[in-house]
Amino acid sequence: MIVEKRRFVIPELLLYSGHGLQNVHMGYETYGELNDRGDNAVLIAHYFTGTSHAAGRYRESDPEPGYWDALIGPGKAIDTRKYFVVSCDTLCNLNTGNPDVITTGPTSVNPATGRPWGGSFPVVTIGDFVEAQKQLAEFLGIERFHAVAGPSMGAIQALEWAARYPHKVDRVIAAISCGLATEPFLIALLNAWCSPILLDPNFRQGDYHDGPLPAAGLTEALKLVTLTALHDGWAKRLFGRRPADKSKALPSDSGQLFAIESALQQTATARAAIADANSFLRLAKAVQLFSIEDRKHDLRSKFLFLPAESDLLMFPRYAESGAAELSSLGLSVETHFLKGDGGHLDGLNAIGQASEAVRAFMDA
Amino acid sequence: MIVEKRRFVIPELLLYSGHGLQNVHMGYETYGELNDRGDNAVLIAHYFTGTSHAAGRYRESDPEPGYWDALIGPGKAIDTRKYFVVSCDTLCNLNTGNPDVITTGPTSVNPATGRPWGGSFPVVTIGDFVEAQKQLAEFLGIERFHAVAGPSMGAIQALEWAARYPHKVDRVIAAISCGLATEPFLIALLNAWCSPILLDPNFRQGDYHDGPLPAAGLTEALKLVTLTALHDGWAKRLFGRRPADKSKALPSDSGQLFAIESALQQTATARAAIADANSFLRLAKAVQLFSIEDRKHDLRSKFLFLPAESDLLMFPRYAESGAAELSSLGLSVETHFLKGDGGHLDGLNAIGQASEAVRAFMDA
Repeated sequence: MIVEKRRFVIPELLLYSGHGLQNVHMGYETYGELNDRGDNAVLIAHYFTGTSHAAGRYRESDPEPGYWDALIGPGKAIDTRKYFVVSCDTLCNLNTGNPDVITTGPTSVNPATGRPWGGSFPVVTIGDFVEAQKQLAEFLGIERFHAVAGPSMGAIQALEWAARYPHKVDRVIAAISCGLATEPFLIALLNAWCSPILLDPNFRQGDYHDGPLPAAGLTEALKLVTLTALHDGWAKRLFGRRPADKSKALPSDSGQLFAIESALQQTATARAAIADANSFLRLAKAVQLFSIEDRKHDLRSKFLFLPAESDLLMFPRYAESGAAELSSLGLSVETHFLKGDGGHLDGLNAIGQASEAVRAFMDA
Repeated sequence: MIVEKRRFVIPELLLYSGHGLQNVHMGYETYGELNDRGDNAVLIAHYFTGTSHAAGRYRESDPEPGYWDALIGPGKAIDTRKYFVVSCDTLCNLNTGNPDVITTGPTSVNPATGRPWGGSFPVVTIGDFVEAQKQLAEFLGIERFHAVAGPSMGAIQALEWAARYPHKVDRVIAAISCGLATEPFLIALLNAWCSPILLDPNFRQGDYHDGPLPAAGLTEALKLVTLTALHDGWAKRLFGRRPADKSKALPSDSGQLFAIESALQQTATARAAIADANSFLRLAKAVQLFSIEDRKHDLRSKFLFLPAESDLLMFPRYAESGAAELSSLGLSVETHFLKGDGGHLDGLNAIGQASEAVRAFMDA
C-alpha cells in the first residue's frame, strides 16, 4: 500500500490556553475511500514520538511500513476496503526534522515576530489536537467516525474525542492507554523525561534556534523515553551483560559502556537529530494535562482497551481501572491484553495479535 | 537504642581496578556484643542512597531511627541480644555532606595532589566494598558471619560476600535484590540516573570542587532515583492529580507543576544538598558491574530473598530467577515476598512484615 502525505491548513485554531494560533499546518494521510454517507471513517491518532504514518509506505523503497500496518490495510482488522482511514500529525509533532512530517509548533515561525516561536509557543492540550483533527474531518466530509483509535498518546486523543464529541465517535480503540486521566506516577515520569532538556545549557529557555541546539539533553530525554517504553525481557534478550567493546572482558573503567547503554545512546542520538526539544516539552505537558474525568457522564461510544501486559509506562491497571469506570457508567467496554515482554512498545510492535479482537469490535 | 558512629581506617586498600587506595576511612556502627567464638556477627550493608545507620538513633532527639530498625534491635528479628550487628558506610558513600557519614571517595583528598580526587577517583566495585568490610570484620575479631544482609545495593554486597568468602558467610538475606548479576535493564536505568549529572555544565568531568557544584544535575538524578524506587500506588495515594498551587484549577501554563512534581523536586533538592555527584556516578558503576555468575559454584551459604511485589527497579523476577538458579545448584534458598504498593522502597519502609521470615531464617 503506497500512501501519500498531504497538507491541511487551518487559518486560525483557538487553543485551550486562549491563544489563537494562525496558519496551522497539519500533515495527514488517508487509506481507503469515504462512503456517500460519510460514516465509514476511522481516525488514527499517533503516539508521543510518532507521526501520521500509521500504515503503508510512502515510497516502494521505504524499509518499514507505518507503525500499525499489522492492523490497517486491505483485508486487515481495520479494513481499508471497508473504511476510510485518516491519520494525522499532531500539533507540536516531535519529529520536525523528518521531511515527511508537517506540523505547527515551536519550530514554526511566529507571525508576530517573524522568528521561530521556540519556548514562547503556547501550551497545547490533547483537546487542541482533537479540535485540529475535527477541522480536518469536516474538510474531508466526514460526518461521524466509525472508530477513533491509537496507541498511547494516540489512545488518549481517542478518549478525548469520545468526551468532546460523543455523538460523532461510535467506537474508541485505546491501545497501551491511560484510563480517564493521566495517572500521577506517569505525570512524574514525564517530568523526568523532560529534565535532561532543561539541564542542557544550550536549551536557554527554549530560545535556541539561533544557536547550538540542546542535542545532548534531547538525546538523554529520548533515551529515557525508549528505556521506559521497553522492558527487562527485551533488554535481556537483545543485550544481556555484554560490554559495548567486546575486546575487553568487563567494563571496568568509567568510560566503557555495556552494549545496552551504547545501543540506547546510538538510537537516541539518531532520533534527537530529527526531533525538537521544545516540541518534546509541549507534548509531555499535553499528556500530563489529559483528563476526561469531569466529562465521563457525556460518553456514549463503545470502548476497546488493548493494554500490554509488560507495559511499565502505562501499566495495564491504568486501562483496567478506566475500563471498570466506564463499565460502571453502563457503557460497552471490552479489554484485550497484548502478551509479550516488550513493554509499552508491544502496543506498536506486537499489535498484530489484537487483529481478531479489533476486527470483531469494528464489526460489532 | 542509642548507637554510636565509629571510624575505621585502612592504611591501604587494593581496588579491583588495580589502584592502591591509601588511608581509607570507613564509618561503622555496631549493635549488640560479639561472643567469644566471634561467630554471632551479622553484617548489614546499605542501599544506594543509604548510610551505615541501619537501626537505633544517634541522639535521643533524632526524629527517625535507622532504616531497618523494624528488623534490628533487642527482641527483633535480627535480635541484638543474640547477635553482634555491624553496619558500615561503603566506599564512595553518596551522602558526603551528612556529618554522620564517614567515607573515602571522590570528595576525599588525593594524597598525590593534595586536592579532592573529584572525577579522577578510581572506579570501585561491590567487591571493593566487601574487601573493606572484611578488614573491619577482622579488626573487630569476627571469625564468621551468622548472616550478611541488606536491601538493594546492600543485598548485592551480601551476595558478593557469599561468593568471595563462602566459608565465612552462613546466611545471606537479600532484600529487594538482583539475582546473581545486575540485569541489563537495570544497567540501562542506572545509566539514565547518571545522565542529568553529566549534562550539568557545572559537572566539568567531575572536577567541580573549586567551582559551583552540579547541584541541578544531581537533583534531577536523585529525583529519578526516588521516582523509579517508588510505584504508582504511592503516587495515587499521596498526590493524585492535584496541582502544586491549589489556587489554580489546572496546571495550564508551562511553569505550573502538579503536586507530585513539586514534591519530588523538593525532596531531591534536599537530598542533593548533602550528596556528591562523583560519588553517585561511582556507586552507579559499581552496581552495574555486579556479577557473581562466574563464581556461583563456590557458594555455600543459605539464602533468603525478600523481593517487593510492586518493585519497579529490581523486579521480583530478578530475585526469583536468582533463587531458582541457586536452588538448581543444590543450595538452600527461601523467598518471602513483601506486599504493598510502595515499589522498591517497600524493602525499607515495609520491611517489618518480613520479621517472622527473617527470625525463622536466622534461627534455622
